Amino acid sequence: MLRLHDLQTPALLVDADGLEHNLRTMAGALPGARLRPHVKAHKCTALARRQVELGHRGLTCATVREMEGLARAGLGEDLLLANEVADARRLGAIDARVTLAVDSPATVEAAAAGGVREVLIDVNVGLPRCGCAPERAGALADLARTRGLQVRGVMGYEGHAVGVEDAEQRARLVEQSMRLLVEAHAQVGGDVISAGGTGSFDLNAAATEIQAGSYALMDTAYEKLGLPFRPALTVLTTVLSVSQEFAVADCGLKALGMDHGNPRIDRAKVWFCSDEHVTFAPEQPVRVGDRLRVWPAHVDPTVAYHERLHVVSGEEVLEAWEVDLRGW
Amino acid sequence: MLRLHDLQTPALLVDADGLEHNLRTMAGALPGARLRPHVKAHKCTALARRQVELGHRGLTCATVREMEGLARAGLGEDLLLANEVADARRLGAIDARVTLAVDSPATVEAAAAGGVREVLIDVNVGLPRCGCAPERAGALADLARTRGLQVRGVMGYEGHAVGVEDAEQRARLVEQSMRLLVEAHAQVGGDVISAGGTGSFDLNAAATEIQAGSYALMDTAYEKLGLPFRPALTVLTTVLSVSQEFAVADCGLKALGMDHGNPRIDRAKVWFCSDEHVTFAPEQPVRVGDRLRVWPAHVDPTVAYHERLHVVSGEEVLEAWEVDLRGW
Repeated sequence: MLRLHDLQTPALLVDADGLEHNLRTMAGALPGARLRPHVKAHKCTALARRQVELGHRGLTCATVREMEGLARAGLGEDLLLANEVADARRLGAIDARVTLAVDSPATVEAAAAGGVREVLIDVNVGLPRCGCAPERAGALADLARTRGLQVRGVMGYEGHAVGVEDAEQRARLVEQSMRLLVEAHAQVGGDVISAGGTGSFDLNAAATEIQAGSYALMDTAYEKLGLPFRPALTVLTTVLSVSQEFAVADCGLKALGMDHGNPRIDRAKVWFCSDEHVTFAPEQPVRVGDRLRVWPAHVDPTVAYHERLHVVSGEEVLEAWEVDLRGW
Repeated sequence: MLRLHDLQTPALLVDADGLEHNLRTMAGALPGARLRPHVKAHKCTALARRQVELGHRGLTCATVREMEGLARAGLGEDLLLANEVADARRLGAIDARVTLAVDSPATVEAAAAGGVREVLIDVNVGLPRCGCAPERAGALADLARTRGLQVRGVMGYEGHAVGVEDAEQRARLVEQSMRLLVEAHAQVGGDVISAGGTGSFDLNAAATEIQAGSYALMDTAYEKLGLPFRPALTVLTTVLSVSQEFAVADCGLKALGMDHGNPRIDRAKVWFCSDEHVTFAPEQPVRVGDRLRVWPAHVDPTVAYHERLHVVSGEEVLEAWEVDLRGW
C-alpha cells in the first residue's frame, strides 16, 4: 500500500471520507437527474464516474476537452457544455449526446454549422458573463429551431448569488435570478431549466437541474456558508528550509490557484508564495522533511495544475486518479 | 503554414521577434557562462535549447522534473537545481552534471544520500525564503565536504530587490545582498557565485553567473523597470459573448497566473476572470469570434497551465513548442 510519505510533493490529496460524504449528501438532496454535476472543479474522469454511479447520469462541462474526455470514457449519456463556443466542429464530432449553450445568433450559427444537434438558451440572470438578455431568449430559440437545432430549454447561472454569505440575501438573489430564467423559459419552451451551483443547491427550486461542481471537493470560499459539505482537497507539501522566524515548503504559485489569495496552513501563518515555495511562520517548530497539508484558496484552478488526485485515508493512499480533462 | 485563426483558444503565443530580441540582448550583455538561464519561466526544452545555442551552456532549474527533462534532451552539460530537496534520489539518478542547492545539514545529508555529487551553498541574502544565514555558510560547506560532496561555491537570490522600481534603490539593495554573498563565499570557497535575476542582470557585478529567466518572455511586473527586453508572451483568446457594456472571451483562471492580479487587454478594461472566461469592457465594439491577445499579469504560472507555446510572427504560427517541463 502506497503511503503519504511515498508521494512526490507537491501532491494533490483528496480525503476519501470527505469526498464520499459530499457525494452522498448531495445525491441525497438532489437525487438522479436533479443534479447535473459540473466536472470543471475536478477535471477527473474517475471522479465523474463516481458521480454517475450515484445516479447523476447527465454531466456539465466548461470546455470541449472535458466533453471529449467524458465521451471517450463512456460517460456521454447526456453532456452539457455550459459555455458558448465560436467553433463547434469538435463538439459535433463527439460520439455522445451533446448539448451546447448558445446566447447569440453567432453562437447558434456556430452550433448548427458544427453539427451540434441540441442546445440550451443561455440567459444572463445577473452575473456579467455569458447569456442573452432574458427578453431575447424566445427569439433566439426560434432562430435555433429554424436552423434545425433542438432547443431543450434554458440555462442561467446565478454566479453573483452563490457565494453571498448571508443566507437570506443569497436566497433573495437566487429567487430574483430564477424569476428571470423562468420567464425566459416560458418564451423558449423545452424540458430543461438548468442553473445553480453549490452555494444555491438547496435554494434554487426553480431549476429542473442544478449544475453544482464544487460540492465534491469543496472550496474554502464556500466555508462560511454553512453548507453540509466538507473541505476535502489539500496539497501535500514538504518542508525544505527552516529559519528562526519562518519555514519554506514546496507548494508555490504553480501548484495553487491564487485568484482568491494565499492558501492556508493549519497552525501556521502563510507569508507569501513564490513559484515553487510557500513561506510561512509555523506555531510549532517544523523540520526539513516534515510533510504538511496546504489548503488552497480556490480549488478549481489548483486542480488544473496537477496531473493526478491522490485519494487518501489517513496515511494511506487508496487510489491515484488522473486529472485527465485538463487543457482545452 | 498554420495561422493564428487556426489555433484552438486559449493558446499561448510567443512573439518570435520579441523573443529573439530578448535572447540576443541578454547574450550580448551576459555572454556565455556569465548567464545561467533559469528555465522555470518557460518550462520549455525547445526554448532552453535556443538559449544554449546562444552560448549559455549551464542552465538553472526550479524543479526535479525540469532537471530530468533537460538532461533527457541532451542539455545536461551543467544543470543547477537552485532549490533545496528533502530527497535527492531522482537527482542522483540523472545522467548529467547536476549541482544542487543546500542550506542546512538536512539538505546536505539528502544530497549525499541521494547520490548528488556537487552542491552550492544557498545563502539567504534578504529574501525570506531558502538559504542559510550568511555566517553559517562556511560550516555548512565544511560539512558538505566531509560528506564527500564537491562544493562549487555559493548562490543567493536577491528576490526582494529585483522588482524594485527605483533604479538607485534597486542597485543599493542588490549591492547589500551581494556583500553578504561575497562574504559567505570567502568562507565557502569554490568558483561559483550564482545570483541575480532579470531585474538585476545589469546591476549585479559580484555574481560570477546570473540566473535570469524572465528576460526571455518578459513579465508585465518588470515593465516599469526600463529594462531592454520586450514583453513577448500573450494568450490568444476568442470572443464568445457580447453585451451592451461588456464582452466575454475564453481566457480564464485556468489559463492565467493570477497572483499578480488581472490580465490586461489592449484597448479594453478587464472586469474579472472566471474559470474559463475573462469579462471585459472593450473601447471599440467586438464581435463573437474575434481574436484578442491577453497580457497575463505573471508569466511563469501562466505558462505552467499550457501544453504548448506557439511561436508567431504576425498572423503566422512558425512553430509549436511543447511546454514539456511542467509538473514535478
